[in-house]
Amino acid sequence: MKNSYNKIAGHDLGRIVAISDAVFGVAMTLLVLEIKIPEVNGKEIDLINAFLKLLPKFLVYFLSFLTAGIFWMGQAAQFEFIKKSDRNLNWINLIFLLFVSVLPFSTAFLGDYIHYHFGVGIYWLNLFLMGLMLYVNWHYAIKNGLVSTADAEEASDGIKTRIIESQTLYFIGALLSFFNTYLAISIIIIIQLNYAFAFFKSKNR
Amino acid sequence: MKNSYNKIAGHDLGRIVAISDAVFGVAMTLLVLEIKIPEVNGKEIDLINAFLKLLPKFLVYFLSFLTAGIFWMGQAAQFEFIKKSDRNLNWINLIFLLFVSVLPFSTAFLGDYIHYHFGVGIYWLNLFLMGLMLYVNWHYAIKNGLVSTADAEEASDGIKTRIIESQTLYFIGALLSFFNTYLAISIIIIIQLNYAFAFFKSKNR
Amino acid sequence: MKNSYNKIAGHDLGRIVAISDAVFGVAMTLLVLEIKIPEVNGKEIDLINAFLKLLPKFLVYFLSFLTAGIFWMGQAAQFEFIKKSDRNLNWINLIFLLFVSVLPFSTAFLGDYIHYHFGVGIYWLNLFLMGLMLYVNWHYAIKNGLVSTADAEEASDGIKTRIIESQTLYFIGALLSFFNTYLAISIIIIIQLNYAFAFFKSKNR
Amino acid sequence: MKNSYNKIAGHDLGRIVAISDAVFGVAMTLLVLEIKIPEVNGKEIDLINAFLKLLPKFLVYFLSFLTAGIFWMGQAAQFEFIKKSDRNLNWINLIFLLFVSVLPFSTAFLGDYIHYHFGVGIYWLNLFLMGLMLYVNWHYAIKNGLVSTADAEEASDGIKTRIIESQTLYFIGALLSFFNTYLAISIIIIIQLNYAFAFFKSKNR
Repeated sequence: MKNSYNKIAGHDLGRIVAISDAVFGVAMTLLVLEIKIPEVNGKEIDLINAFLKLLPKFLVYFLSFLTAGIFWMGQAAQFEFIKKSDRNLNWINLIFLLFVSVLPFSTAFLGDYIHYHFGVGIYWLNLFLMGLMLYVNWHYAIKNGLVSTADAEEASDGIKTRIIESQTLYFIGALLSFFNTYLAISIIIIIQLNYAFAFFKSKNR
Repeated sequence: MKNSYNKIAGHDLGRIVAISDAVFGVAMTLLVLEIKIPEVNGKEIDLINAFLKLLPKFLVYFLSFLTAGIFWMGQAAQFEFIKKSDRNLNWINLIFLLFVSVLPFSTAFLGDYIHYHFGVGIYWLNLFLMGLMLYVNWHYAIKNGLVSTADAEEASDGIKTRIIESQTLYFIGALLSFFNTYLAISIIIIIQLNYAFAFFKSKNR
Repeated sequence: MKNSYNKIAGHDLGRIVAISDAVFGVAMTLLVLEIKIPEVNGKEIDLINAFLKLLPKFLVYFLSFLTAGIFWMGQAAQFEFIKKSDRNLNWINLIFLLFVSVLPFSTAFLGDYIHYHFGVGIYWLNLFLMGLMLYVNWHYAIKNGLVSTADAEEASDGIKTRIIESQTLYFIGALLSFFNTYLAISIIIIIQLNYAFAFFKSKNR
Repeated sequence: MKNSYNKIAGHDLGRIVAISDAVFGVAMTLLVLEIKIPEVNGKEIDLINAFLKLLPKFLVYFLSFLTAGIFWMGQAAQFEFIKKSDRNLNWINLIFLLFVSVLPFSTAFLGDYIHYHFGVGIYWLNLFLMGLMLYVNWHYAIKNGLVSTADAEEASDGIKTRIIESQTLYFIGALLSFFNTYLAISIIIIIQLNYAFAFFKSKNR
């Protein structure tokens, strides 16, 4: 029984894409709730100072949004080639989304404990798990013929290399936290900015 | 008047699917808000300990995500065959979504009161009500010719049996709580993991 | 300039439908955050009692979900016939969504102040404003030829009558609050249940 | 490697539209959580007074919803013409969504500090950044041939002029805050109402 159920479940590509966009959309927007309006009763300058104290929270928020954006783009790029889904691919993507949905936590955790190795470590772990699931997603889709064969073959190496490359850089960045955590996180952010905003120079590529 | 309204309302399959993905997406992501960043002012080891204390909350979160994923897959599998909707089917799905949306509550309730029969009971009730609505959904769709007839006939028994089978197992698991609640919930989680990750062995099926 | 902009803006029916489902999905799921897990340290019976005290909150939640469902169905029914949109229709729907998004507030307000005329009044006002916008939506779409002409003509009276009919009943229900607020709200809920679950008897219609 | 990845990533127009609707939907609905049910134990009139005290919060909420609606319409209007996407266009839209998602913050900030220049300034900055990204979005799409050429050419000036026009008016409005902040914000709201509800007179255009 389960046998035939497994065969029939999960062909609808539209739904895994739709729930992905819903989870990303909520995860990207939720963290703004953490930025509370400051209470000020004094002069203009007091309000400005109170706002400036919120800037680290905004930076953490932007970082979370940026990270989510990078992985959203990564998943979207894979689904350009993936033409059908099955039960397993759906579960792979749900687990990917699980790690996406804890991103607000790990980013806020990093924001509060940026001077601890462990804060950097947890954030790195989240990046790693999302990258891992994206890799598994592509590997599974290719191996099981769920992609449009012609272009996918060509793109496959690029997609895999990109994940491995970025994850290697994240790992090196995270290791640097044993030297200096601010340095570590700066390196990770620079890597992310490079992936996100590579487009500023990508025009002639 | 109502008569003709009922006839015209609810044919748009896309919308019930879209709102399902929105409700699932929000329900899956909301519970992460319950995991508060711990406050630590001491050494690295203090932060690690504070984080370790959060692990049960993470387990509850993962369980909630897993459960939502199982039922999302179940609904998606049915909508592979359901080709049109009507007012009644829409309402059946809305009630299903109602029970999905309280899943964050019942999972957190279980997390806090895992050593109480009643905690297990509430969680089981939620699983039962979601399973019941999925059964009603399929039964109604089949009976009212809303499915693509050819394959649906074949799949119908599998879908129904799967719901009854899993619900029977959940019920037995819940009953075990009168013996030992940790045993009961472990059994339920194992059943869920089996349904979710059956795919690890499903390749040759 | 604005002139031509107004002409070009808003033809994409898919987007107003998509944002509707997103807002409904979030509004339907948010209120569950209001139901806090009780803190109990005693016997099984204490936990059960603590849970029973939450039942009114659950009823309010179910009522909110039910109400949202009714109006979601109403909007979906109209969009079965509406085949294109324009800037104005988009704004009409955004304002409709504005009133949908405050439904969690007005329902919770009713839950806390069910014995006050004003609590019933605010809830009624919300129902009225949603109904009003649905009426305006249909009226505008018909008048500006945005519907599929053949069936829409036929359905139009049914859609309008249904809104007027239900709003008249809500209004009478709300007026009863000057006699007894519990009676008033019971009547309103019965009217809503009738609209929602009319389907139990609708088979032979 | 990155080279070919950049070429292949981001063609799926549907996804950037879907995540836009998700982020807008959540952002539009989240702020209602800020309106807490008042606690009243007295007479009817006390409840009414407590509710009236919430009216500024409702106004802020409506303003936030209105603003989000204006920019949602603006983005939707552009995507009427944009027929394909690329990696860069996706990132432009993600950054646009980042500024959309902080709108609940900046509107609430304005609500609390409407009598401070800085409160008006932050709100204006948010409007400016959203307008800027919309401008960049259109400019990039046109320049890189991502639009349906025929109509887009014609519409292009209208879309750009509209953004510049409205942003100029917002800027003048914001500058007025050095004279009187209430005047400044009133002007901005009137400009927004004009853009939103231009439709009341747009029938014969």
